Amino acid sequence: MRVAILAHELFPDQAKTALGVLRYSDHEAVAVLDRANTGRRVAEFVPDVQDAPIVAGMADLDPTDVDALVIGIAPIGGGFDEQWREDVRTALEVGCDVISGLHYFLADDEEFARLAAENDCELRDIRDPPADLTVADGVAGEVDAEVILTVGTDCSVGKMTTTMELARDARRAGHDAAVIPTGQTGIVIEGWGNPIDRVVSDFTAGAVEAMILEKGDDHDYLFVEGQGSIVHPAYSPVTLGILHGSMPDALVLCHEAGREEIHGYESFSLPSIPTYVDLYERIAAPVAESQVVAGALNTAGLEDDEHARTAVDEYADALGTPASDVLRFGTDELLEVLC
Amino acid sequence: MRVAILAHELFPDQAKTALGVLRYSDHEAVAVLDRANTGRRVAEFVPDVQDAPIVAGMADLDPTDVDALVIGIAPIGGGFDEQWREDVRTALEVGCDVISGLHYFLADDEEFARLAAENDCELRDIRDPPADLTVADGVAGEVDAEVILTVGTDCSVGKMTTTMELARDARRAGHDAAVIPTGQTGIVIEGWGNPIDRVVSDFTAGAVEAMILEKGDDHDYLFVEGQGSIVHPAYSPVTLGILHGSMPDALVLCHEAGREEIHGYESFSLPSIPTYVDLYERIAAPVAESQVVAGALNTAGLEDDEHARTAVDEYADALGTPASDVLRFGTDELLEVLC
Repeated sequence: MRVAILAHELFPDQAKTALGVLRYSDHEAVAVLDRANTGRRVAEFVPDVQDAPIVAGMADLDPTDVDALVIGIAPIGGGFDEQWREDVRTALEVGCDVISGLHYFLADDEEFARLAAENDCELRDIRDPPADLTVADGVAGEVDAEVILTVGTDCSVGKMTTTMELARDARRAGHDAAVIPTGQTGIVIEGWGNPIDRVVSDFTAGAVEAMILEKGDDHDYLFVEGQGSIVHPAYSPVTLGILHGSMPDALVLCHEAGREEIHGYESFSLPSIPTYVDLYERIAAPVAESQVVAGALNTAGLEDDEHARTAVDEYADALGTPASDVLRFGTDELLEVLC
Repeated sequence: MRVAILAHELFPDQAKTALGVLRYSDHEAVAVLDRANTGRRVAEFVPDVQDAPIVAGMADLDPTDVDALVIGIAPIGGGFDEQWREDVRTALEVGCDVISGLHYFLADDEEFARLAAENDCELRDIRDPPADLTVADGVAGEVDAEVILTVGTDCSVGKMTTTMELARDARRAGHDAAVIPTGQTGIVIEGWGNPIDRVVSDFTAGAVEAMILEKGDDHDYLFVEGQGSIVHPAYSPVTLGILHGSMPDALVLCHEAGREEIHGYESFSLPSIPTYVDLYERIAAPVAESQVVAGALNTAGLEDDEHARTAVDEYADALGTPASDVLRFGTDELLEVLC
C-alpha cells in the first residue's frame, strides 16, 4: 500500500505513529505531510527509517500515487484537529482511504462519512474495537507458539519499538515470528490488531486472548506489544489485561534511562527495577509462569554510545538478565535468550 | 421508592440483585415476581431480609402501589429473557420506571422505549456507563475520608455483601459512612454508582477515582465495593482498576470457605491466602500504601456455626488479621480495626 502520512508540525519527535510506519511497516511512504517542514525530506531528521519527501498537504500529491492517508500524530486526548480537515477531505475526494487511530472516529464525522460513501473509499478508525469481544477463557497458554510480551516501567519507554525490532530481527534470523498489535501504531503498521485501551474492562484479557488464539498455531514466536505499566495510576488495567490475557512464556522489561517518576504523574516514583521484575512475575504466576528474561533500555536521551553502554550494563545488572538498547545496540543479546 | 422485584424461577438462590435489594436497600419491596413461587412470601425462603409477598407478575399488583420495577436477576451473558417482556410492558403501561443491570439495554428496545416515552416513565439501564469518563489523575488518596476496599480471592465470594454489611453497621455505630458502588447490585441498592466492568479499560481507574472524589470529602468512611480478583484470568483488569483508582487506606480480603479453584476456570488453583495479601499490598504500594487489615469469610456452604467458627479462625490465622463471616457472626471484630 502506498501511503501519505499526516504529521503537521509534530514531525518527527512527537509523531510516534508516523515514525513507526516509516520504520517498520511494509507500506510505501509516498510523502509526509508537515506544513512546518515543506520541501525537506524525512532522512534529514531521521536517518535510519524509510525516506520520503515532506509536503504541505494532500493537494501537493498526485492522487494516483496514493492509496491511503494515515493520521500519523495523536494529540493528548485523541481529538481531531480541524487544521487537518482539508487534507482528509482532499484524500477522500480523490478516492484515498483514511486510516486513523484517534479517539475521535472519522466515520462519525458527517462530512467524512458522506465523502467516503460518494467516492467509494474507506474510513478505517482502528481505535474502534470490534463488537464481538467477550471474556477470556484462560486458554492463551495452549497455543503452540512461544509468547513473548514486552512490559514496561511506564508509558512511552519503548514497548512498541522493542516488539517491532525483536519480531523483525527474529524473522531475519530465520524464525517464524509474528506481532500481536495492541495499540494504534502497532495496528497501523501491521494492518490488523485490537486497540486494547478502548476495550471494555471485562473484555480486556479476552480481546488479547482472541488475538493469541488467532495467530498462535501458525507461528513459532508471537511478540505481543505491551501497554502502560502494572503500577500506573491510570493505565494499569490495560497492562494487566494484556499480561493475563496473553499468558506469556517470557517477558521483556522496557525502561527509559533516567526515568524516575511516572510520566505525567510526577508525584509517583518508579519502584526499583528488581521490584518491577518481582511484581510482573508474581502477578502473572497464578495465571501463567512468565519470567522476565531480558531487558530493553531506551537511551535516546543519552548523548553518546559510551554513556549508553554503561547505562545498559547497569540495567542488565539490576535485572539479572541480558539487556540492550534495541535501536542503538541491536537485538542480538535479547534474541539469544528469546529464540 | 416502592419497588417490585422481578426474579422469575431463580428466587432466592440465583437472584443476587433481588436479594441485595431486599437485604440492604431503603426501597420498600411491594412484591417479588416469581411465577414458580406464587402465593408464598420472601420470609419463607430468607428469614433475615425485608419480607414481601411473591406474585406471578406485574398484572397482579395495584399500579398505584409501585414506583419502579427492578430486574432482580442476571442470566449468564446478561441477556433479556423474552418471558419477562409482559411484566416490563405492564410496568411501563401503568407508569412505573424500570431499573435494569442487564448487558441488554432496555432503552435500546424499540417497544420499551416507545412505551416509556408514551407513559412518561424512565428506563434506567444502570450498566450503561456515563459518557464523560476520563483517565485517572492519581488523586483519590487526597480525600478526607478513610477509603476501605473489599478485595477477593475470586468472583462471588462476598465482596458486595461485606461492603454493605460494613457500611450499614458502621453507620449504626454512629460513623458517617458511605458506599461506593461498582457493580449492578450495589448500584441498584444505592441508587447511584458506576458499572466498572463496562467501562473502557483506559478509564477504569478514572471512573472509580471520580466516585471517590465525588463523595470523599462528605464522609468519614467510604466502603468501596470491589470486583473480581487480582489473579482472575478474565476479570483482573477490573480489580486492578478499582484498586489503583480508589487508592484505599485499608483492604478487607474476602474469600469463600473451601474454594480452591477459580469459579468457572477450574484449571486455575487459588494461591494461598498469604500470597493474596502479599500480591494486593505489593501491587498497590507504588500507587497507595494499602494494607489488608481484616478478612471476610463466606461460610454459607458450611452446615453449622461450630464448623464456620473454626474456618473463620483458621482464615484469621492465615491472614494475620481479624476475620469474620459478616452474615453469620457480624462485623464487630472487623469494624474494631477499620473505624
